Amino acid sequence: MSLINDLQWRYATKKMNGQKVPQEKVDYILEATRLTASSSGLQPYKVLVVTNKELLEQIKVIANGQAQITDCSHLLIFASWDNYTTENISKVFANVNKERGLPEDNMSAYKDMLLNVYTPRAEELNHAHTARQAYIAVGTALAAAAEQKVDATPMEGFNAPALDELLNLKEKGLHSLVLLPLGYRDTENDWLANLKKVRTPQADFITELN
Amino acid sequence: MSLINDLQWRYATKKMNGQKVPQEKVDYILEATRLTASSSGLQPYKVLVVTNKELLEQIKVIANGQAQITDCSHLLIFASWDNYTTENISKVFANVNKERGLPEDNMSAYKDMLLNVYTPRAEELNHAHTARQAYIAVGTALAAAAEQKVDATPMEGFNAPALDELLNLKEKGLHSLVLLPLGYRDTENDWLANLKKVRTPQADFITELN
Repeated sequence: MSLINDLQWRYATKKMNGQKVPQEKVDYILEATRLTASSSGLQPYKVLVVTNKELLEQIKVIANGQAQITDCSHLLIFASWDNYTTENISKVFANVNKERGLPEDNMSAYKDMLLNVYTPRAEELNHAHTARQAYIAVGTALAAAAEQKVDATPMEGFNAPALDELLNLKEKGLHSLVLLPLGYRDTENDWLANLKKVRTPQADFITELN
Repeated sequence: MSLINDLQWRYATKKMNGQKVPQEKVDYILEATRLTASSSGLQPYKVLVVTNKELLEQIKVIANGQAQITDCSHLLIFASWDNYTTENISKVFANVNKERGLPEDNMSAYKDMLLNVYTPRAEELNHAHTARQAYIAVGTALAAAAEQKVDATPMEGFNAPALDELLNLKEKGLHSLVLLPLGYRDTENDWLANLKKVRTPQADFITELN
């Protein structure tokens, strides 16, 4: 299978059947997500993986009762950093240098440049930037899930401040952005399952400047 | 190959060798990008594909002289809608209904709900939302390029208002977000080519709530 075939197979599953996704497939999707690109390699977000039934019921309530939250196997939550700080940026560079066996001050000019740009900037601007990076990861997770023939439904329709409070995300310096239930389609009971996938026509989507 | 292998292979290529990417590979990457998910399926962005040499030289000047812009084969530019409007939302629904052979007013309650939420909202908020959707597409394009063994370097380091002016994007209701040169790595002359890929450790990246 190719990525195009995988993307044609996937859709925003509206009704899942409750079947468990094997842990190795969940691990695969998370690993692909972890490997994707981000601005300056900062990966300014985390992924929470929820399987606790009571917690899923509570999340469903603050997500307009969407059934996939409790019919899924694993609920991924993408949550990005509220802000860039000297601490969270420095931690990334320390890890990179350690893993590459390089001195602690390697790339320090580049690190200082990022600190000078990001840390004085309004939290709102920085959060807009961290959020965008997390959406690259959402795109990657969707591709990985489809490759594994696991259904995944990205959802923004939830009360994000309420979820942040429920999961104590604020004290971890995080904002929730996207819910991504993983599971398996219940084809017979999903109104969307058999409708044709429609996208913006190529001629509208692409502009060539030759 | 699997997506994880593809993502381990890819990196933010700093030096490209000028070799042309076959058109069918570029088309493949664009088609995967077109097929990815977006909020309510609105796909509120476009992809520009630049191969014109003079234009690439001009873009390089407003992108801090980054060499990949002229050493690449094709430069993709991801540009999202400035705003949600009755016109651009209605056009999406009209296309979906036409493609599915359904009446023009199918899903009109859902369309009206979106119009009621999005059209009165500040342009700034809507643009933040359209931009996030475009980043899902960036994640997808990166996966597709890696699958095709095409190098791709996502770049935010450019003067976006200057690029919007150069390409008359404002009058098309668009803002540029990300440049994505496609090409082939010049391994011998790329300082990053042989450095270990480092990512946030799994234990920091993933939080399980069982």
